Amino acid sequence: MRNLFEIDPWKIIETKFDANKQKQAESIFSIGNGSFGQRANFEEKYSGDTLQGSYIGGVYYPDKTRVGWWKNGYPEYFAKVLNSTNWIGINIEIDGEQLDLNVQQIKYFHRELDMQKGLLKRTFRVVFGSGKELEVESIRFCSMAREEIAAISYTVTPLNFSGNVKFTPYLDGNVSNHDANYDEFFWLEDSRKVDIQKGILCARTKKTNFCIATAMRFSFWREQELLTIHPNVAQRDFYVENNFEHYLEKGVRFTLKKYVAVTSTINHSEFELAAKAIKRVRDAYTSGFDTLRTEHENAWAEIWKSADILIEGDEASQQGIRFNIFHLYQTYTGKNAKLNIGPKGFTGEKYGGATYWDTEAYCLPFYLKTADPQVAKQLLIYRYHHLDRAIENAEKLGFKNGAALYPMVTMNGEECHNEWEITFEEIHRNGAIAFAVYNYVRHTGDTAYLSEYGLPVVAGIARFWAQRFNWSEAKKAYVMLGVTGPNEYENNVNNNWYTNYIARWCIQYCLEVNAQVSAALPEKLSAKEIKDFQHIVENVYFPVLTDTNIFLQQDGFMDKEQLTANDIPVAERPINQHWSWDRILRSIFIKQADVLQGLYLFEDHFSEDIIRENFDFYEPKTVHESSLSPCVHVILAAKIGRMDKALELYLRTSRLDLDDYNHEADEGLHITSMAGTWMSVVEGLGGVRVTENGLSINPSIPKPWKAYSFQIRYKNQPLALSITQHKVTLENLGSAPVSCKLFGQEISVKEGEKQEAALK
Amino acid sequence: MRNLFEIDPWKIIETKFDANKQKQAESIFSIGNGSFGQRANFEEKYSGDTLQGSYIGGVYYPDKTRVGWWKNGYPEYFAKVLNSTNWIGINIEIDGEQLDLNVQQIKYFHRELDMQKGLLKRTFRVVFGSGKELEVESIRFCSMAREEIAAISYTVTPLNFSGNVKFTPYLDGNVSNHDANYDEFFWLEDSRKVDIQKGILCARTKKTNFCIATAMRFSFWREQELLTIHPNVAQRDFYVENNFEHYLEKGVRFTLKKYVAVTSTINHSEFELAAKAIKRVRDAYTSGFDTLRTEHENAWAEIWKSADILIEGDEASQQGIRFNIFHLYQTYTGKNAKLNIGPKGFTGEKYGGATYWDTEAYCLPFYLKTADPQVAKQLLIYRYHHLDRAIENAEKLGFKNGAALYPMVTMNGEECHNEWEITFEEIHRNGAIAFAVYNYVRHTGDTAYLSEYGLPVVAGIARFWAQRFNWSEAKKAYVMLGVTGPNEYENNVNNNWYTNYIARWCIQYCLEVNAQVSAALPEKLSAKEIKDFQHIVENVYFPVLTDTNIFLQQDGFMDKEQLTANDIPVAERPINQHWSWDRILRSIFIKQADVLQGLYLFEDHFSEDIIRENFDFYEPKTVHESSLSPCVHVILAAKIGRMDKALELYLRTSRLDLDDYNHEADEGLHITSMAGTWMSVVEGLGGVRVTENGLSINPSIPKPWKAYSFQIRYKNQPLALSITQHKVTLENLGSAPVSCKLFGQEISVKEGEKQEAALK
Repeated sequence: MRNLFEIDPWKIIETKFDANKQKQAESIFSIGNGSFGQRANFEEKYSGDTLQGSYIGGVYYPDKTRVGWWKNGYPEYFAKVLNSTNWIGINIEIDGEQLDLNVQQIKYFHRELDMQKGLLKRTFRVVFGSGKELEVESIRFCSMAREEIAAISYTVTPLNFSGNVKFTPYLDGNVSNHDANYDEFFWLEDSRKVDIQKGILCARTKKTNFCIATAMRFSFWREQELLTIHPNVAQRDFYVENNFEHYLEKGVRFTLKKYVAVTSTINHSEFELAAKAIKRVRDAYTSGFDTLRTEHENAWAEIWKSADILIEGDEASQQGIRFNIFHLYQTYTGKNAKLNIGPKGFTGEKYGGATYWDTEAYCLPFYLKTADPQVAKQLLIYRYHHLDRAIENAEKLGFKNGAALYPMVTMNGEECHNEWEITFEEIHRNGAIAFAVYNYVRHTGDTAYLSEYGLPVVAGIARFWAQRFNWSEAKKAYVMLGVTGPNEYENNVNNNWYTNYIARWCIQYCLEVNAQVSAALPEKLSAKEIKDFQHIVENVYFPVLTDTNIFLQQDGFMDKEQLTANDIPVAERPINQHWSWDRILRSIFIKQADVLQGLYLFEDHFSEDIIRENFDFYEPKTVHESSLSPCVHVILAAKIGRMDKALELYLRTSRLDLDDYNHEADEGLHITSMAGTWMSVVEGLGGVRVTENGLSINPSIPKPWKAYSFQIRYKNQPLALSITQHKVTLENLGSAPVSCKLFGQEISVKEGEKQEAALK
Repeated sequence: MRNLFEIDPWKIIETKFDANKQKQAESIFSIGNGSFGQRANFEEKYSGDTLQGSYIGGVYYPDKTRVGWWKNGYPEYFAKVLNSTNWIGINIEIDGEQLDLNVQQIKYFHRELDMQKGLLKRTFRVVFGSGKELEVESIRFCSMAREEIAAISYTVTPLNFSGNVKFTPYLDGNVSNHDANYDEFFWLEDSRKVDIQKGILCARTKKTNFCIATAMRFSFWREQELLTIHPNVAQRDFYVENNFEHYLEKGVRFTLKKYVAVTSTINHSEFELAAKAIKRVRDAYTSGFDTLRTEHENAWAEIWKSADILIEGDEASQQGIRFNIFHLYQTYTGKNAKLNIGPKGFTGEKYGGATYWDTEAYCLPFYLKTADPQVAKQLLIYRYHHLDRAIENAEKLGFKNGAALYPMVTMNGEECHNEWEITFEEIHRNGAIAFAVYNYVRHTGDTAYLSEYGLPVVAGIARFWAQRFNWSEAKKAYVMLGVTGPNEYENNVNNNWYTNYIARWCIQYCLEVNAQVSAALPEKLSAKEIKDFQHIVENVYFPVLTDTNIFLQQDGFMDKEQLTANDIPVAERPINQHWSWDRILRSIFIKQADVLQGLYLFEDHFSEDIIRENFDFYEPKTVHESSLSPCVHVILAAKIGRMDKALELYLRTSRLDLDDYNHEADEGLHITSMAGTWMSVVEGLGGVRVTENGLSINPSIPKPWKAYSFQIRYKNQPLALSITQHKVTLENLGSAPVSCKLFGQEISVKEGEKQEAALK
């Protein structure tokens, strides 16, 4: 796979402007701070092909459902994160000619995303029609220290002339979602105001009535000297600007510093919104760009201190993992209970920016091992608050007695998706939400969670599964018909092994939780339910391949033409961009881990031999056209000692967007799979596991690597692991001793101490 | 089931205006002449809930596809029959108040569809706000004798006053398709013209450039006296009108006779279109309403002479069958090779008015047994002309070497449908098209057809099937994965018995045709193909229920919860309006005949016992929520002697729309299933079969009926059958003797002679 951009351990670097890569670059160089974010669109006008995107966490719009053929049960709308006020805008004009990289001749172009410091930088030189040459240097960031603040430093230097240049910093709320179903404009303007000091634009979403306020101020500098500027003001619907012309001397750097505050009713009442934005931007202006930048860089340094994974000897791997960690933290910091993790974060519109099972299946393990337990708990409670909606959702599909089906896609708990084979059938998601409760408790030991929040959710989910199974008189067993497993290249299959397995596990787990919780919760199981659940647990049907240990992905799987992914001509990859849907469906090819996803989640239920046999059966059939696929394979491959395969797939997951494997980075990045990438290092190569029996560590290292190291949190103690080709070092950075198994040996590491072991 | 309208052997009668039934009535009282047609909208203004519909056979628009989630292989557009110029309009105004049945008090209302004469009549009395009472009597028809002419007689009588009444006959091209995907307006105006004698409106479809011209003239009568009128003219975009005010004396009948011509580029060049319309309307005007009406009634009398089915002793059955025959002839007369039979005919927009497998599976047998063989041949050649497109369609899905997949829905041979489980998977349609060739040849003996048109189509279809099967190493047989059978309440199943059966049959038939055709056609099979085909024919897998003769609808069918339709609460019927789609899919309930469809088509391959066993297994699980379901069941029920069930289902099919069983008549009628209704009498009760061994007749009669009789054509000889509770009479109305089997006995009936036999 060719690299799209330069390799560097801390930076993504683009050294030549390529209009054809612009949308990919806009995604990859995106910045955000967990609260809001922005694609790497240019500050100045750009008339070429671009996907403008500015997003505020939690602010969504219910876009009227669009389908070809309505099916009973479809939701009325799809809740979408909105493209909102463009706050980066700074137009530059010389002699009536707008600066526009799609128009002027470009003599130099350098863009970099400094992941260590959280900065998006750009330097370029252009020649205007008049022959005037200009150099521009811009730096911007969304502050990790002040969650409602962004700042831009935009420096213009005339290279071969002195003369007037016009600067127009502006805010523009005339933005639409590219993916709007009916080209609807989702915003109403509440107010706008602009004076010589500041501009503010207040807008409100139609229907949902989320209000946002975006405020700006600017200062203007000749080298290090602050100039006093009396700008003009202009405004129209959804738009405010300042503008001024200034005489720039040849070779002198003139800098416009733009400060922006973005507030919303996610965090404030409607009435104080504008005032808060104005206050925040005034504070930022008063602090000044350098102070803000230092605060921001410090915040990132704090994050990296514990979150970084250091890989020595392989810069592509190093860059890849940091890229993933960087974007994860840009998307979700864990500070705000109202937010969740959209599949594209703040890097694009696709998938609506809403919550998927990705959160529980891929992101939660990351936060459980890296963040304060409160962050994971917060993600769990998010679903607890949606329980009533999940019950309503199940009722709509004909289930009863408190059965809960969590939605495939949601913003407020209501189902948004409208594709029958997914919406109604990809129900394994429900299992991931129950598993998340289990996973949280085994990581944290917080069993109190079960009474207050856990049982209601787990019981709702188990009740759903109990009704969704049906007794097959033919098989004398419980079967589950008409589902779509994690492998979405199969639809409407019977007895998907993964779904049957996690469903049975949920029912079993519900029985256990029910027995543990002594509180007289209304959700507790009745005696009849307990008996029925027990009967199901003992009698679920699982498809298997006779005379092997292979679990069949679904009934009828062996009727398929038995091919491997190597049989597909390269020109036909990815198949989802080359083959008709029916051909994909009836082929044997697997989009993402399915049976293997189950073996990953329930690893301790299966012997290594069984895992190996199934891995060898399924991996060659898997095309990894879901971003969520390779990470699971890395973890299993490492476990069974297939280190070459593990490294190959690690590179694929960690550089999926950086190298745009699936030809879709232009639409945004695969944020939720980035947590999977982290897991592929820590759980995969690092062999870190947290089970009911505690922490165990079985590290290995790919041959090309010299060493790698990372931190995890266990029982709230930070531990540092460092692995070379020869030894593993475990250091307890915390304040209490930690016990664990290292290569199967029980060890205890005191606070502040290290232990070493030879690599096996 | 409650009857919507009055029971009468020749008429549909509505005696009270009910605004809630208006859209159903508009469908049911529709009129057409095979060339164009019109829902029973009112001539005068109607401000209530209505679905305006005026359609011209073959004129369509490629409406941009609308889907929620795009799948590779979807077509760019859905070709739709268009709502076109409203030609019925006659507005009536008194003292500035428009006549409008949604506004005035209605004192009397009577609407009838005279099926014998092909007339839509309406008489009503209303009281205006001023207290003025008016009686209106309208009669209209689309001429069966002149395929581009319609006429309306609109009589107004002031009942309690004398005074001025304003008449406004008009043409209005400002009409949209209710089902337009993006609310697009599909027409461009070419020209319009109106003078005191006539008006004309010429329009053109966007993209497809079909042109239509609609011309009108009128005359005005005081009782039988022709008055000279100098009307005003008015026009605007897509609209022309005449209008005049006239003093009407109390109790005197004033009649506006409106003549309309509708021409299109289906039949004329663009350049002569307007002139033809003006000439046609002038001729109609010159002939006069009464002459046109007489011609039209005579044409219908001619149709009924051979097409009628007479049922004595059961008026509901009698009305039902005539309603079906009437609408079939209104939709398709067999005169125009460019037309086909849309599922809703000229009665609504749903399903786009395009060609489905309905034509081959349900309509063709009707025309084969009632019409000149040329009509059936014409329907076959329509598909022959689409062969190249069917090959392209298959290529798009990854098939090669001349494999042809006919579209699910089409206007010009290209696939229009966009629902993956149908578009790509409901491929059994391909089988029906090959079977139609076989059926045509066995009815007509026209084996010459095979060389010229038959082999290419059959070979393309067989090549598709040969590639669509795949070898299952597990089953050591050919399987077919990922299909949707005729029962659309299952999607993406493996080894649908019906599809496997007809697919194998197609391959087998192709081998036979290939052997028969001596011409050196490029489509002839290669030696390797012959060998491969033979191998498939001998090794196709069919799911069966062990220890029975039951053919399983698909793999896994016995895992379903084993219920019957009686287990569904009445309030939840039809399930497609009450249950979520996933629930329908995983339930056992069958929308329409599937295995039984196969037993019907290939009846001579199976013993009566096998048919009975499968009928008894499947019929109780069938909810008949497709209009195409009951007819097949009637035929099989009659064959196995279940006469009560046959009658029950006959009534359901014949009165499906009349009594609106499935709550959807407002959207239009189920035209193609009407041919199935005819088959349910002739093949079902009448026991008429035409096989390779000739004609056989095994009639039976439901207990409540006194007698029934009908005609068929066999080897182009008209035969009349009449069945009472005691005997059957077969009369040869033709000019050559006919041999057949009556109750298994070989008989020969000379021209002009009758034979009788006692009913078994």
